[in-house]
Amino acid sequence: MLKRVNIKTIKWVGGMDGHVELIDQTLLPGEFRVIKIKDVETVRQAIKRLQVRGAPAIGIAAAFGAVLGLRRMADDAPVDKARQKLKETCDYLATSRPTAVNLFWALQRMQKVATESKIDNTRQLKDRLLVEAIDIRDEDAAMCQALGAHGADLISPGDGVLTHCNAGGLATAEYGTALGVMFAAHQRGKKFHVFVDETRPLLQGARLTTWELAQAGIDHTLICDNMAGALMQQGKINLVITGADRIAANGDAANKIGTYSLALLARAHNIPFYIAAPSSTFDLSIPDGSHIPIEERPPKEITHVGSNCIAPADVNVYNPAFDVTPHQYIAALITERGVIHSPDSENIRRLITNA
Amino acid sequence: MLKRVNIKTIKWVGGMDGHVELIDQTLLPGEFRVIKIKDVETVRQAIKRLQVRGAPAIGIAAAFGAVLGLRRMADDAPVDKARQKLKETCDYLATSRPTAVNLFWALQRMQKVATESKIDNTRQLKDRLLVEAIDIRDEDAAMCQALGAHGADLISPGDGVLTHCNAGGLATAEYGTALGVMFAAHQRGKKFHVFVDETRPLLQGARLTTWELAQAGIDHTLICDNMAGALMQQGKINLVITGADRIAANGDAANKIGTYSLALLARAHNIPFYIAAPSSTFDLSIPDGSHIPIEERPPKEITHVGSNCIAPADVNVYNPAFDVTPHQYIAALITERGVIHSPDSENIRRLITNA
Repeated sequence: MLKRVNIKTIKWVGGMDGHVELIDQTLLPGEFRVIKIKDVETVRQAIKRLQVRGAPAIGIAAAFGAVLGLRRMADDAPVDKARQKLKETCDYLATSRPTAVNLFWALQRMQKVATESKIDNTRQLKDRLLVEAIDIRDEDAAMCQALGAHGADLISPGDGVLTHCNAGGLATAEYGTALGVMFAAHQRGKKFHVFVDETRPLLQGARLTTWELAQAGIDHTLICDNMAGALMQQGKINLVITGADRIAANGDAANKIGTYSLALLARAHNIPFYIAAPSSTFDLSIPDGSHIPIEERPPKEITHVGSNCIAPADVNVYNPAFDVTPHQYIAALITERGVIHSPDSENIRRLITNA
Repeated sequence: MLKRVNIKTIKWVGGMDGHVELIDQTLLPGEFRVIKIKDVETVRQAIKRLQVRGAPAIGIAAAFGAVLGLRRMADDAPVDKARQKLKETCDYLATSRPTAVNLFWALQRMQKVATESKIDNTRQLKDRLLVEAIDIRDEDAAMCQALGAHGADLISPGDGVLTHCNAGGLATAEYGTALGVMFAAHQRGKKFHVFVDETRPLLQGARLTTWELAQAGIDHTLICDNMAGALMQQGKINLVITGADRIAANGDAANKIGTYSLALLARAHNIPFYIAAPSSTFDLSIPDGSHIPIEERPPKEITHVGSNCIAPADVNVYNPAFDVTPHQYIAALITERGVIHSPDSENIRRLITNA
């Protein structure tokens, strides 16, 4: 089995004529395949089809997608035309998925550097965009390391830690957010046990989180999502840590469907519920979680598991990909800048805007 | 599609030389197959493998199994030998599954009739046992009808009703418990919408409950188990109704894993949580839910869906089939003898022991 530390979820290979390489996460854990992408349409498809998923990783993919959008433009083309092409590319990539704010954050950042006054030709613009996209990737990796270091103290030896979906290296450039906290605690020599929600419908917990924990050598047990409450009742869970796809100004957090239930169940059992996310996941432009658009995905994700149809073919299905956990249920937000206990608009703004 | 009213989940066909017929529920909804069983080993296997499942249906299957256990015994064999064979058969069938009390209730009832003083030969005993087993089946069907009638008033027009697993006709002789309440409300002309938890790992909700509701013409939507909380948050759920596998003297109720979480989530949203179960599901010999044995089932039920392996092959798995909901979270128990609001030891004993 591959060593986790060698895995980069998504990266740029080569110079301006290079390409994106990413791990196709729809095939794991059965098959480890890295795909090469040279055009923006395929990047958008990869995001939409969840070949690359996880809020930070989506942002990185979008940034590389913006670079690919200008790939065929001649170096001596008018720079205004290149800027217009960049805008069109970013608008197109922004339609891939609606909930994770890192996507929009990365695309805005790419467009912002394009306006820098010192750029006066297309060649410069293309070079600058590639540097920025690689920076976004590298910064994400560094943020995950810092976030993990800040959060590691929240795990005590002997703890049972519950997590949902995959907020690991595969959801980021590398290392991960919720799993980054666990990796950091593990690296400090703490022994603890992770219970992994399988995370229906697309089973990111069963397929990806177990795979990452196995490679890191962290003890873990796979459960179905509906078993979390019973485990809490039995006293086996001491804390819950998940990632997030978008955090509003007041701390309300959208994350994979089922997270809200876990937060309520944790509260009912007096178990702390934590969210680990980098500052790129915060959307201070919206006051609360009611403003976060929730993606609904195709019924077939629920009615079919691989080739098996598990329900009547014509059944009516509701398939929201995310839910929103009100900040009152979040014991702390773990970020690369520190831990925000009892998050609210004031302490979030203080930490996130004072970069 | 077959009409629900024509379906009998399990029945005896023919006289003393007859056999059991039951719907193989592992094949639904893809295939509707009725299997014939003529020996007690196959009955036990059918219970263990969940070809027949649901607490009341398991009890009926066990009663018929007891009849089959004496099938090869000569009519002129000594009646004491027949009674001994019956005991061995019942002890054997009792090892099929541990949680649903209807299994033990039915087997005890079969052994009790065998002690009737008027029975003085094996032929009489065999006849008496067949009559008793058929009575258990017919009484269950009648109990479900009565239970449905008592519970129907709890559903109001326009309600969103959440259910978990399958507590329908397929879990009983016919008609069902939790679904029986819905069928009765539907027959009274009420329009409401049912949200069906798919119910991992074996997907009884996705496979069986949607199938029954479709045949009854009741509007319904399939969701993943982890979506129930988000639906409650959105105000789409007005009440929750599930079945039960064993109810202790104080009202604590074991039911399919995930039920406890639903009860807590319902409480957090001020939504009433109901359990529908016949008196045969009550176990007044145990004071509370801590005395209910919880079956753990094979890891493969979680790691495999049909032929698809959805997790690393060697992953550690926890697969409890049931959890226990404390009576404090149960707004009412719906039985064939009436509705027990705010159940506790006193009001349960009053209704259940005063038959």
